[in-house]
Amino acid sequence: MRALEGEQICMRIFIGESDRAGKGPLYRELLNLLRTEGIAGATVLRGIAGYGAKSHLHTAGVLALSQDLPILIEAVDTQEHMDRVLPKIDAMVDEGLITLEKVHVLRYAPKQK
Amino acid sequence: MRALEGEQICMRIFIGESDRAGKGPLYRELLNLLRTEGIAGATVLRGIAGYGAKSHLHTAGVLALSQDLPILIEAVDTQEHMDRVLPKIDAMVDEGLITLEKVHVLRYAPKQK
Amino acid sequence: MRALEGEQICMRIFIGESDRAGKGPLYRELLNLLRTEGIAGATVLRGIAGYGAKSHLHTAGVLALSQDLPILIEAVDTQEHMDRVLPKIDAMVDEGLITLEKVHVLRYAPKQK
Repeated sequence: MRALEGEQICMRIFIGESDRAGKGPLYRELLNLLRTEGIAGATVLRGIAGYGAKSHLHTAGVLALSQDLPILIEAVDTQEHMDRVLPKIDAMVDEGLITLEKVHVLRYAPKQK
Repeated sequence: MRALEGEQICMRIFIGESDRAGKGPLYRELLNLLRTEGIAGATVLRGIAGYGAKSHLHTAGVLALSQDLPILIEAVDTQEHMDRVLPKIDAMVDEGLITLEKVHVLRYAPKQK
Repeated sequence: MRALEGEQICMRIFIGESDRAGKGPLYRELLNLLRTEGIAGATVLRGIAGYGAKSHLHTAGVLALSQDLPILIEAVDTQEHMDRVLPKIDAMVDEGLITLEKVHVLRYAPKQK
């Protein structure tokens, strides 16, 4: 397993739960892409309310029966890995917000035993 | 629609689900404020456990029947937009943690077609 | 109550929901550690899908009946507080990702009345 330490990049992708990519939810396709491209790790979080590029308000309340809750995908890896995968992500995300920020990675990997 | 690229600000507000603002939950009032003030996007996440300014432990477990789970609101926009909306947020949040960090925005907006 | 303002550290710990520490879930033990060590605040978020150090895909879908969903713990405090607690966290986390990033804290504490 690859180690990953020091200054790296945290990529965050804000999309909607109802966004599609081909046959499935966009967030699953993005998660599959990140994994098959070898990005070290990714976490998908679902919000309970929010709004985005279209300024529609999404909530989990009674008035919003649609399932278009906000989805936030967080992935951490090197700048080089992110540069390689970003054009593919950009091609899949039709609407949404993608941010990058520097993070200091203390540890990624099981301990040596 | 406004474009939003380059170095911007991610604001994060940590409050409790049971915090109130007037007639409704504080997080909904904050979300409405962010939207009506034209902040580009916001996402509300609900935690399953946590503690904050009052150091009370909140969990979704059996022993914690109250609904005071942690709420995290994330919003991204320019420094100028954040500076304008922050005094209003500060006036609404009685207890909580507000953080700002720089992020690099790759894309916010539907693709040109 | 301690005030906390200006440039501080946001620590983020990515683990799995099924990770154990002694008799309980690792995330609860970490939350207890952070609180007893006096870290200003912490929030535990549960993802709906993800993968990590072992590259296993975790989802909340039908095919993944295990409860090993991703867990993200976020905590904010001074660099000194984080330096003190990090060796203890590192000793408890067998597999996972720990990141640190600088954030600007606007407010932590109830308002003076």
